[in-house]
Amino acid sequence: MSKDLILNEERLDDLEIGNLFLIQHPKKFSFGIDAVLLSDFAARKIKEGEHILDIGTGTGILPLLLYAKSKAGRICGLEIQEDMAQMARRSVAYNQIDTIDILHGDIKEYTKLFPKASFDSIISNPPYMNEGKPSPNENMAISRHEIACTLEDIIEAVIYLLKPGGKFFMVHRPNRLVDILSLMRQRKLEPKRLRMVQAFAGEKPNLLLIEGMKGGGSWLSVEENLIVYESPGMYTKEIVEIYGKDDKR
Amino acid sequence: MSKDLILNEERLDDLEIGNLFLIQHPKKFSFGIDAVLLSDFAARKIKEGEHILDIGTGTGILPLLLYAKSKAGRICGLEIQEDMAQMARRSVAYNQIDTIDILHGDIKEYTKLFPKASFDSIISNPPYMNEGKPSPNENMAISRHEIACTLEDIIEAVIYLLKPGGKFFMVHRPNRLVDILSLMRQRKLEPKRLRMVQAFAGEKPNLLLIEGMKGGGSWLSVEENLIVYESPGMYTKEIVEIYGKDDKR
Repeated sequence: MSKDLILNEERLDDLEIGNLFLIQHPKKFSFGIDAVLLSDFAARKIKEGEHILDIGTGTGILPLLLYAKSKAGRICGLEIQEDMAQMARRSVAYNQIDTIDILHGDIKEYTKLFPKASFDSIISNPPYMNEGKPSPNENMAISRHEIACTLEDIIEAVIYLLKPGGKFFMVHRPNRLVDILSLMRQRKLEPKRLRMVQAFAGEKPNLLLIEGMKGGGSWLSVEENLIVYESPGMYTKEIVEIYGKDDKR
Repeated sequence: MSKDLILNEERLDDLEIGNLFLIQHPKKFSFGIDAVLLSDFAARKIKEGEHILDIGTGTGILPLLLYAKSKAGRICGLEIQEDMAQMARRSVAYNQIDTIDILHGDIKEYTKLFPKASFDSIISNPPYMNEGKPSPNENMAISRHEIACTLEDIIEAVIYLLKPGGKFFMVHRPNRLVDILSLMRQRKLEPKRLRMVQAFAGEKPNLLLIEGMKGGGSWLSVEENLIVYESPGMYTKEIVEIYGKDDKR
């Protein structure tokens, strides 16, 4: 029966964690290491029973990974593209999880979507780019470029939707660091923890993980950089652990 | 004759670069690796003949290192503590350099000290701390804590004193990163280049080097972290090169 959940051209990927599977489409945005690193960065701080929102959930990868890696309560994945939201919903159904809700909607409508201060933690793997030419593939373009929503839209929604003291976790690009830290401070979503990610030792970072707290005090903890590869094709010990970590079930 | 420049209790340190010497006092703030790293971070970007200001010059270490490592024109070192300014002035005299001026004054009086937009580049190794108990030694306290001036005072002065497109170079602590990037962007001293510094591979960074440009566009280049030690007591190759680099004379 659950095979009917996978449509033409789609494939079923084994997440190799918590016995979970994810439906993906070869012509649509697939999850990358960014989502895996963000889920681990956030899961360490998410407490039992927390109500979580994932802004721009895409395939639904983050709710599934958080389900496996934390003791979160209900997790809501919000997605602006209807076909992606439907595919994510089918992934949740395939895994027979009843604590993940996939919602089709636009985060810019945040006041209509959710009550104020309704989440303990919010997570997002947003589009990174605010310049350059977007992909002609609309799905790829919306996933990568700030077309459907900007960083500012996200921060504005997050500060409204988080409970006081609530946490925000995001993965982004280092070249946007000034935008990220300035906007977060401006909106009183104080940056508390920053971790840069780089491919190899001795290289520049190409991703960053940031944690903010609604109404937090001004002290930033900058963690040691996370290095992905020991040598070409071979993950570092830490990355192997992150991929395999399954704290809950 | 030049021996008369060194007062009681003071010592003369060989900078081991450009045949330069520095007068220091055992009971006053002595320069550390911070100044050396900052001078190298800035010197690479300073062009021939540039007019430079060093805010809070202390012993005068930064003007001397920039003199050795760049082709800067006149370099002014501003220092609020009169005894330090006098000691720095004697170091400059000892080295018989006539392109470095040491000025005793308070950066908060910037409109009275210098004409608007009078510097090509400004450099600073400011006090890092805005919390905790300052040292009972007044000299140490002023060098380490934001007593005589805050980060905000410095940024405000820098944006006034820099020419349009002029550059600012600073060393600071990673836990102040949000303050630094937010204040710089707010004042249109756009952060353009960031480099974190850590003692050993795999550790958290404990210093940061930042370059800003007056009126620059929003794109930050985050460089690979600078690692100081290969093993306990043994510098990495890059640090050995930085200590020895003497591009000019």
